[in-house]
Amino acid sequence: MKFKAEIDVMPHAALLDPQGKAVTGSMKNIGLSQINQVRIGKHMSMELEAANQAEAEQMVDEACKKLLANLIMESYQFQVSAM
Amino acid sequence: MKFKAEIDVMPHAALLDPQGKAVTGSMKNIGLSQINQVRIGKHMSMELEAANQAEAEQMVDEACKKLLANLIMESYQFQVSAM
Repeated sequence: MKFKAEIDVMPHAALLDPQGKAVTGSMKNIGLSQINQVRIGKHMSMELEAANQAEAEQMVDEACKKLLANLIMESYQFQVSAM
Repeated sequence: MKFKAEIDVMPHAALLDPQGKAVTGSMKNIGLSQINQVRIGKHMSMELEAANQAEAEQMVDEACKKLLANLIMESYQFQVSAM
């Protein structure tokens, strides 16, 4: 069965996010000063082959832990859906 | 009223995504060769002050167009929800 996974990897809330800080500052320059607390991370989409939903989720979780997220600085969440 | 926006900015499907290609290749090395078609973009979260949902969505859309996404190479989608 084919599944599609959507993963978000974000810097931990407790950590400084310099890229997000810079973008928050830039919002003022384009007249959108109501926007703040910008935080920037990664979004990943992928396809995978698995026997069922549980196996697909386990594979994506393993990929996040081993390769996609740096758990010291980042947290991740994902959604897996059948294609 | 306070709103929270979650934005995904991804490379257009028609474009090569070298970072995603590299990660797809690495999946084999960690024993997850069932995962393929990895594409990598950005995920952004932010807070904003707006009178209502429609105004909040318009502001986020403007931020994406002016600053957050390069529409030549990337497409974006977002969700705005009241906090």
